[in-house]
Amino acid sequence: MITKENISDRLTELQESICSALEKEDGEGKFTVEKWEREEGGGGITRILQHGNVIEKGGVNFSAVHGKLPENIQKALKVSEPGFFATGVSIVIHPSNPMVPIIHMNVRYFELGNGEYWFGGGIDLTPHYANVEDARWFHSQLKNTCDKFESSYYPKFKNWADDYFFIPHRNETRGIGGIFFDRLTAENKGEDAGEKQKLFDFLIAVGETFAPIYLHFMQSKSKLKFSEAEKKWQLIRRGRYVEFNLVYDKGTKFGLDTNGRIESILMSLPEQANWFYNHVPEAGSAESTTLNLLKKGIEWI
Amino acid sequence: MITKENISDRLTELQESICSALEKEDGEGKFTVEKWEREEGGGGITRILQHGNVIEKGGVNFSAVHGKLPENIQKALKVSEPGFFATGVSIVIHPSNPMVPIIHMNVRYFELGNGEYWFGGGIDLTPHYANVEDARWFHSQLKNTCDKFESSYYPKFKNWADDYFFIPHRNETRGIGGIFFDRLTAENKGEDAGEKQKLFDFLIAVGETFAPIYLHFMQSKSKLKFSEAEKKWQLIRRGRYVEFNLVYDKGTKFGLDTNGRIESILMSLPEQANWFYNHVPEAGSAESTTLNLLKKGIEWI
Repeated sequence: MITKENISDRLTELQESICSALEKEDGEGKFTVEKWEREEGGGGITRILQHGNVIEKGGVNFSAVHGKLPENIQKALKVSEPGFFATGVSIVIHPSNPMVPIIHMNVRYFELGNGEYWFGGGIDLTPHYANVEDARWFHSQLKNTCDKFESSYYPKFKNWADDYFFIPHRNETRGIGGIFFDRLTAENKGEDAGEKQKLFDFLIAVGETFAPIYLHFMQSKSKLKFSEAEKKWQLIRRGRYVEFNLVYDKGTKFGLDTNGRIESILMSLPEQANWFYNHVPEAGSAESTTLNLLKKGIEWI
Repeated sequence: MITKENISDRLTELQESICSALEKEDGEGKFTVEKWEREEGGGGITRILQHGNVIEKGGVNFSAVHGKLPENIQKALKVSEPGFFATGVSIVIHPSNPMVPIIHMNVRYFELGNGEYWFGGGIDLTPHYANVEDARWFHSQLKNTCDKFESSYYPKFKNWADDYFFIPHRNETRGIGGIFFDRLTAENKGEDAGEKQKLFDFLIAVGETFAPIYLHFMQSKSKLKFSEAEKKWQLIRRGRYVEFNLVYDKGTKFGLDTNGRIESILMSLPEQANWFYNHVPEAGSAESTTLNLLKKGIEWI
């Protein structure tokens, strides 16, 4: 039977391998390593790369925390057991070049004191300039990974991402979506370790899909030229990213509500973001095309 | 008896006079004027000044909206009557020069379908560089205004501001506080129009305290020289302002939850904000002194 220690050990390896791959491709930036402990139990390793060649600010965080859930979190999770263990790897990368997309990945495992457990996670892409071809390629990578496990996964998790990575007050999605899943647990509640193993394998497969995807975009986009106007648009889109993460993101809220390490939680925020009053892109511009692609329900593949 | 129309008319005059005063002092920037209507009832006038001489981005908004409160808002307000009318003036000014503080002011009137009503509002100051002398002067202005009405107002509303303008996840106040009040209503529930008049007069007095206070800081600080490091600190402090407004501010939440005009609500966000991972100012620096003044319970006067 897989233990929570097996899972958190494997996730630290994932963190390590992703950081190596990103550093190698960036060619200049190095991830810092900060181990931290949480007063109420557990801790983590925060790894941040700032001012690299391609990556302006990126975080690849590992944590494995335990303790008692506050009542509001128990309510939100619809559980009546306060004892918990949670481990995961969370990534957000903000590139310097507006032609390179922002990316987010999270894989996590949650276990309650009563033995109930589930896996969750996802990958989503936020291009400053969206186009159908890149979106199709990105979604195909995710579908390939999902299809190795269950053919129902990709369509289900793709729709879930559309709903989750959505900014109601802007009536737009954060980016071109991806996959999102939560509460994945064995249907057989007995001793079927095989089912748990399969879910864990899927989680790791999602984690291992991250680096090849982002390396592809680093390689193909980071040498592209861009104008001042395109840089400005990037900073505006980053503002929307900040709005999503501070107003809606459940991981951020969970971190703030459980007294998490604040600088690790907010590593997802870009180095710089801008808000210009009532900025509306010109009709027919690449910026306007991008906005038209920030919608739920587009079948990219 | 003062009607809601009397109040909203007087608030549009306040908006007008504040914009004139700020434009005159800025010497360069002009406020745009945008009238908007809300589908569910009412509307407002949004006035924004961008790229002035002193003011980088400032908003002076008036609104008078009515309709039905969504259930979550009824719950939050602890009322069981959906019909509402709300009018107010809201201001946030972000200056270019880090030596000039950010300021916020809000005065508002709320009335339910059943005739129940209350006044609310406040002024608070967020210096990028705080010092005791400026804070004392600022708080004295607020105390003078309060003392003309009730001697209990200033101490009570000053503490309320300390509690309200607080960022729990940073364990720091947004700035050096000010006054905050809500649910001010006549104790005599009968026909005592005099009591309502007095509360309304107080509201307007708070509104009229704003311009002289901010003009004082524009005049005394906007010619001060600043370094690149000081500009960077300003952008970091603005990041905290964004965190407060998106995570905690009840006015922002009310606006988002009642389908308010999003660009008017988020005019409070600065043109540019930055997040550098784990930035800690040097011990003994002006930045570190500022952080030490961002605490609840300091008696400035």
